Amino acid sequence: MREVSIIGIGQTDVAEHWDKSVKHLAYEAISAAVNDAGVKSIGALYVGNMIAGQISQQLHLGAQIADFCGFRGMEAYAVEAACASGGAAVRAGLMAVASGAHDIVVVCGVEKMTDSLGDRVTGALATAADAEYEVDQGATFVAINALLMQRYLYEYNPPRDAFAPFSINAHQNAMHNPHAMFHMPVTLERYQRASMIAPPINVMDSSPICDGAAALVLCASGLADHYSAKPVRILASSCATDSLALHDRFDVLHMSAVERSAKQAYEQAGIGPEDIDVFELHDAFSIMAVLSLEASGFAPRGEGFRLALDGEIAPDRRVPISTRGGLKARGHPVGATGVYQIAEVATQLRGEAGATQVQDARIGMAQNIGGSGATVVTHILGV
Amino acid sequence: MREVSIIGIGQTDVAEHWDKSVKHLAYEAISAAVNDAGVKSIGALYVGNMIAGQISQQLHLGAQIADFCGFRGMEAYAVEAACASGGAAVRAGLMAVASGAHDIVVVCGVEKMTDSLGDRVTGALATAADAEYEVDQGATFVAINALLMQRYLYEYNPPRDAFAPFSINAHQNAMHNPHAMFHMPVTLERYQRASMIAPPINVMDSSPICDGAAALVLCASGLADHYSAKPVRILASSCATDSLALHDRFDVLHMSAVERSAKQAYEQAGIGPEDIDVFELHDAFSIMAVLSLEASGFAPRGEGFRLALDGEIAPDRRVPISTRGGLKARGHPVGATGVYQIAEVATQLRGEAGATQVQDARIGMAQNIGGSGATVVTHILGV
Repeated sequence: MREVSIIGIGQTDVAEHWDKSVKHLAYEAISAAVNDAGVKSIGALYVGNMIAGQISQQLHLGAQIADFCGFRGMEAYAVEAACASGGAAVRAGLMAVASGAHDIVVVCGVEKMTDSLGDRVTGALATAADAEYEVDQGATFVAINALLMQRYLYEYNPPRDAFAPFSINAHQNAMHNPHAMFHMPVTLERYQRASMIAPPINVMDSSPICDGAAALVLCASGLADHYSAKPVRILASSCATDSLALHDRFDVLHMSAVERSAKQAYEQAGIGPEDIDVFELHDAFSIMAVLSLEASGFAPRGEGFRLALDGEIAPDRRVPISTRGGLKARGHPVGATGVYQIAEVATQLRGEAGATQVQDARIGMAQNIGGSGATVVTHILGV
Repeated sequence: MREVSIIGIGQTDVAEHWDKSVKHLAYEAISAAVNDAGVKSIGALYVGNMIAGQISQQLHLGAQIADFCGFRGMEAYAVEAACASGGAAVRAGLMAVASGAHDIVVVCGVEKMTDSLGDRVTGALATAADAEYEVDQGATFVAINALLMQRYLYEYNPPRDAFAPFSINAHQNAMHNPHAMFHMPVTLERYQRASMIAPPINVMDSSPICDGAAALVLCASGLADHYSAKPVRILASSCATDSLALHDRFDVLHMSAVERSAKQAYEQAGIGPEDIDVFELHDAFSIMAVLSLEASGFAPRGEGFRLALDGEIAPDRRVPISTRGGLKARGHPVGATGVYQIAEVATQLRGEAGATQVQDARIGMAQNIGGSGATVVTHILGV
C-alpha cells in the first residue's frame, strides 16, 4: 500500500449559512484546500455527505461539486455512512491514492442542515438509526443517545455534573477557532441550567444543527514534499461497524466498533493510546465522548468521565480532545464532521492551532462515528 | 496497482418485492455471491444505493447490511452517484483490493423503489438532476431525457421507429434471463401503440420502477484461482463526470463523460471498441442507448440507432447489447443497476448466459450512467 499524506486543508466557518447551498459550501472548502496545497492537477473528488437528498433534494453531489469547482470531467462520487460519511470519504480517497489509481485527490465533507422545512432535519438524522426497529417505534436520534446516557448513569452512577466538563472544554477551545460555530464560553452554572432535550441529555450535552464543509488534498507521500513544506502522514486508517439498533448489541455501553477500529489503527501505526498527543473524538453528545474514550483505550470502562472531571482533556493536559471545539462547539454538520476532525488534527500537527495548540504534537487521532456507534472510522496522523 | 478479479456473482430477481426491505434484498444477492465464490473470509462491504434515504427512510446501509448478512464488525459504507451508484461502488471495492487494504471484498448494489408513498419516487429520482436549475423549474428526470431525445430527432431526423429495436432486443433477451423483470416480448406494433410518458419518450423507451439487488465478490487476481475455476479479470475501471444540468453542457448530444470514461478504459485495457464482444450499456431510456453507442465509439454521431435498425445489437451479431434484458427489460433498480451490468458481463464471459450467450465472448464492457450523463463508470472485463 502506498503511503498517503495530507498536503492541503480547507474549512468553511460552521454556521447557519442561509445564503449558501451545498455546492457553494463545498466550493469554499475545496478551493481553500487546493490553494493551501498549491496543486494544479487533481485526479478525483470524493464527497462525504449524509442528508442532502432529503434536505436539499439533491443527490449526485460528486459530479455536481466537481463541475462547480471547475473539475468537470474528473472522477467523482459520494460516500455515505451516516455521521461517519466524512471519515469514510477520506478512506475512499486514501484507497484511491494508495492503489495508484490517482496521485492526488480531494476529499470534501459537506452538509447543509438548515435548508429543511419544518422538522424535516429530525427525520433526516434518524435515517442513521434503524428505520424499522427504532425510528418507526418513535425514537429520534437524540432519544437513542439519551437511552445510552441513562443506562450509563444507572450502571456507573457518576457524580452529578460528570458530563459538564466535556461541554465546558469544547466551548473554551472553540473560542480560539475562527471556523467554530460558537464563540461563547459555557460555565458549570450554564450547563446546569440548560434545557433538557431528551432526558438526561440537555442542550449543552448536544451538538448543534448547522452547515459547513471541510476539504483535504491527499497525495502519495513520495510526492508530498514537492507540494507541501508540512505534509502530514496518514499512519493508519480503519473502518469498523456494529449493529444499527441498540437492542441488537451484546453490550450497549461498550462501543465494539470503536474498540475494533481504534485497535486496528493502533496496530497499523505501531503505537498505543499513550502515544496519541491529540484526539479529535466524536462528541456529538457528551455520552459519545465518554464511551469513545473508554473503548479507544484512554480510560477503563465506567471511568471515561473522570478524565474530564480531572481536567485531563484540556489542550495542555494528558488527553487533549475537542481542541478546536469538537462537534459540540465547532459544530456538527453531519457528513462534513469526519473531514473537519482530520483537518483539525492536521492543523495541530502542523503547529498552527494557535491558543489551543498542543505542545510538540507529533501524533494525532481522529475518530468519526456514524449512528450510535454503528460505523466508526479512525485515522492516525503523524509528522 | 494490484489486479482484481470477480470470483462470485449474486442477483435477486428484479421485480416489485413488496414483501422485502432493502436489507432483505441485499442479503439475498450477497449470500448468493459469497456462495458462488466459496469464500469464508471477507474484508469489507461496499454498498451502491441511491434513494433508500428518501424511499425507505433508511441511510447507513453499509453497517446495516453488513450486520444483517452476518458480517458485523467489518468495514462497510455506501457509495452514491445517482443511477451510477452501483458502478461507483464496484470502483470503491476495486480500489480497496487494488490498494492492498483488503484481499477480498463484497460489493452490493441494492434499490427498493416500490416502497414509496404516492409519487415520492419521481421526486427521489429527480435528485439525480440539478435541483436548482432543472427540478425546481418543473422538470422530472424523464422530461430531461425527453429533451435529449427530441433534440436528437431534430438534429438527425432518424426514420420513424428508429428507437424501437432497442426495446424489442432488450425484451427478447430478457425472455431467457430468470432474474429479469419482464418476460414479455415486445413487437414493433406494441412499441408503436405504447403510451407517451414524456413525448417523444414512450413507455417502451423507458426502464421500469422496480426493486432488486446484485452483488460481486472481488478478489486480488493473484489469489483468485484458489477460489474460482472461472475468475473474471477486471481489465479496466474508469469514472468520469459532466455537468448535471443539460443547459451547462457544451453539446447536449455528445455525452462527454461517456467518451472520456470509455477512452480511459480502452487505454487501460489496451484495446478499442472493436475488441468488445459484449457491451452492457445504460439503456434507462432508448436515447441513452443511442448516445452511449455513439460516444463509446461503436457508431459515428447521429448514427447510433442504425446499429439497432440493422440488427447488429443482437447476441449473435456485431455489437451485442442488453444481452440479459438491459435496464429496459431486466429492470433498473437504480443504485443496483451498475452491479447487475457487471454481473451480467461476467456471466457472459463465464459462458453461462444460456440462450443469449455471445459465442466465444472473451472481453466485455459494462457502462453505468448517473443522471443524464453526469457520472459515467466503465468497466472492461476479460477471461
